[in-house]
Amino acid sequence: MAAEADKNVKAGILVTGTEVLTAVIRDENGPWLSQRLLDLGIELVEIMVVADRPADLLAGLEHMRDNGVDLIITTGGLGPTADDLTAEVVAGFTGRELVLDQAMEDRIAAILARYAATTPIDLNAEAMLAANRKQAMVPDGAVALNPIGTAPGLIVPGGDLVVLVLPGPPRELRPMWEEALTQPLMLDVLARARPLLSYRLRMFGTPESELASSLRDIEADGVDTERLEVTTCLRRGEVEIDVRYREEARAEAESLRAALAERHSATLFSLDGTTIDSMVADLLSGHRLSLAESCSAGLLAARITDRPGASEYFAGGVVAYSNQAKADLLGVDPGLIERHGAVSPEVAHEMAVGALERFGGDIAVSITGIAGPDGGSDEKPVGFVCFEAIVADGGSEARSLVIPGGRSDIRDRSALVGMHLLRRLLS
Amino acid sequence: MAAEADKNVKAGILVTGTEVLTAVIRDENGPWLSQRLLDLGIELVEIMVVADRPADLLAGLEHMRDNGVDLIITTGGLGPTADDLTAEVVAGFTGRELVLDQAMEDRIAAILARYAATTPIDLNAEAMLAANRKQAMVPDGAVALNPIGTAPGLIVPGGDLVVLVLPGPPRELRPMWEEALTQPLMLDVLARARPLLSYRLRMFGTPESELASSLRDIEADGVDTERLEVTTCLRRGEVEIDVRYREEARAEAESLRAALAERHSATLFSLDGTTIDSMVADLLSGHRLSLAESCSAGLLAARITDRPGASEYFAGGVVAYSNQAKADLLGVDPGLIERHGAVSPEVAHEMAVGALERFGGDIAVSITGIAGPDGGSDEKPVGFVCFEAIVADGGSEARSLVIPGGRSDIRDRSALVGMHLLRRLLS
Repeated sequence: MAAEADKNVKAGILVTGTEVLTAVIRDENGPWLSQRLLDLGIELVEIMVVADRPADLLAGLEHMRDNGVDLIITTGGLGPTADDLTAEVVAGFTGRELVLDQAMEDRIAAILARYAATTPIDLNAEAMLAANRKQAMVPDGAVALNPIGTAPGLIVPGGDLVVLVLPGPPRELRPMWEEALTQPLMLDVLARARPLLSYRLRMFGTPESELASSLRDIEADGVDTERLEVTTCLRRGEVEIDVRYREEARAEAESLRAALAERHSATLFSLDGTTIDSMVADLLSGHRLSLAESCSAGLLAARITDRPGASEYFAGGVVAYSNQAKADLLGVDPGLIERHGAVSPEVAHEMAVGALERFGGDIAVSITGIAGPDGGSDEKPVGFVCFEAIVADGGSEARSLVIPGGRSDIRDRSALVGMHLLRRLLS
Repeated sequence: MAAEADKNVKAGILVTGTEVLTAVIRDENGPWLSQRLLDLGIELVEIMVVADRPADLLAGLEHMRDNGVDLIITTGGLGPTADDLTAEVVAGFTGRELVLDQAMEDRIAAILARYAATTPIDLNAEAMLAANRKQAMVPDGAVALNPIGTAPGLIVPGGDLVVLVLPGPPRELRPMWEEALTQPLMLDVLARARPLLSYRLRMFGTPESELASSLRDIEADGVDTERLEVTTCLRRGEVEIDVRYREEARAEAESLRAALAERHSATLFSLDGTTIDSMVADLLSGHRLSLAESCSAGLLAARITDRPGASEYFAGGVVAYSNQAKADLLGVDPGLIERHGAVSPEVAHEMAVGALERFGGDIAVSITGIAGPDGGSDEKPVGFVCFEAIVADGGSEARSLVIPGGRSDIRDRSALVGMHLLRRLLS
């Protein structure tokens, strides 16, 4: 029994639909269900996407059973057309007959009648009746879930596992998932799962390889990281560290968080998952920000204003792409550009001062750099970017970096560095 | 032999990565590769996403072999950390030993040395050397593909099938895919497939439902669309229409293109897949553009400058978020804002004129709108946006629209409308 209790409850997600497989539409359900399962402590073993073909569907179901899953969630293939075959295939897979659910047929008929009364489209009554009946066919012994659109969902017991059959459209799937969780067949599965605890850390400026080495050192120092599930992911220039653990490993999880915070105090900017955008928004409260962007060309302004309510602290910015614009709109001395180049700490400084003055705020950030692919030199290669963040009462942070990657990496990363400079300046 | 020649060449895509499975990051590679396979005439049988665990990876590979695929493409798991195991598992699956590729080790070392020389980050040399060697281990008899980042790709023969091992980051995967297609092992697979011909059309301003109705009418008019594979996809505010066909259906494909062009001459802006960004860049040649953005807050500037060489025709822009900035930086009369509101055709006009004057160019675009979630009224709801595009010698295009969706939809769509206004004004 102890071994049984320690075994993870496992699930697989089977996404059906030729239009998903051929990338005509994007699968939103797999990632969404993945997060729900994680929260419930159910281990997702795989997501499989197959076309609307009975043989492929059945092969997918069998593969998941062979993998020892306790729960298979299928999405899609519940519609009224001939290529919507999920209910039939799942019935075969679980060895059950399809039988007409009379109450369900009446319910679907009522939904369709309501729809027909409000739509201007001329509907083919006979085709609708046939479709109606098809959608009311339920595997014997299964629980039918009320349709959100016209397709009912299903919970089908299949020996050692349960198959949860959900419709494809996310706005139908999501409420039906909530309903499914209240049904005894699903509650049985959930009761065997043990929800995981988790936290997320965020770093900026430490490469993943160095983080991997820190994790090994921390383990060597006696923190039992074997009991923690640690995943690191480089996303848009920052490293996200996700740590998941059982209640009994809470002490190790906290030791890891403390050890990482100590080793990487300069770069581990978020200990609780808070994003840089949210931190900067909080720090800017009561201030008035303006921007002077060259190579990032509006990306920092767009990022700052991505949050509702940004007008409280954001005055505006100048995208000073040409040297003329740097002089005319920000008051940068053309002689200074001549002497030091448009991409130089000196010009970055004058751009920031110009933005501060022109917009009448109390904080400004400037970015000027070489986004490439042309325009680099030995002294100032493509990716060389100069930054300055200043406050009206005197403080400032300046940086000059060579950012690796292509044009769009350099531009995106420039905006990100601007966010982090703001954080350092204000905190 | 005839039957053999008619058999579709089949492929499976195996996406590895706990961070994809747990929905920390979104899989971009599956859909992208799916489209490439379609163009090559290779039938994609399934996409499977599994965690970074050798047993799950191997089970996925075996499932695909059982499904009779000719090609398995794996993505991810080629990095320097301990959970990057794809090369090792694929070696085992194909019955090959992992051997050190000395030339590859040297190549990776050179890449890392270049990176170390330019980054301000303090790197752990020992950790990097170990990672370096791990990434240079190649299955015996496999072809190693040159790294785009630091991870080499692999083409591994495995009896009746070929395994193509690609890295996870899309900007590494995409160029490596192109390189893989030139290799003899992949050419053998391609030679057995029958490529589809294809074209792409782009529309802006016609809803998908209306397009579907046009397609039915065109079929009723005698174009045999049964022989064409037509997919429509709403992407970032535009409708993409992809038409795929065998050589023998070329006449039907061209009839369809002509019929759509005739029916939707006002909105079908691209008959050969050319993007709006590329068209606008061409049209701006010889001109000098400046921008005045409020709700889009730099997104149009960022989009214009996304293309290398944009400095040839882009002077700069003002992100005039506050009313004060509209007055101070663009010379908009505060009384006009008082009378008509900051979001009004009148203010949009003065913003465009101000941008034209301040930057000394010959073309300007202005955008002012209510991105929400707050700030809407009955008269001017959230999503109400005013635009004007003007040329110095007198021409102009103005629009006021209510853009549906949330804050980010409204902002993105505003920048897109700006692009299309520019196209109309200049063409």
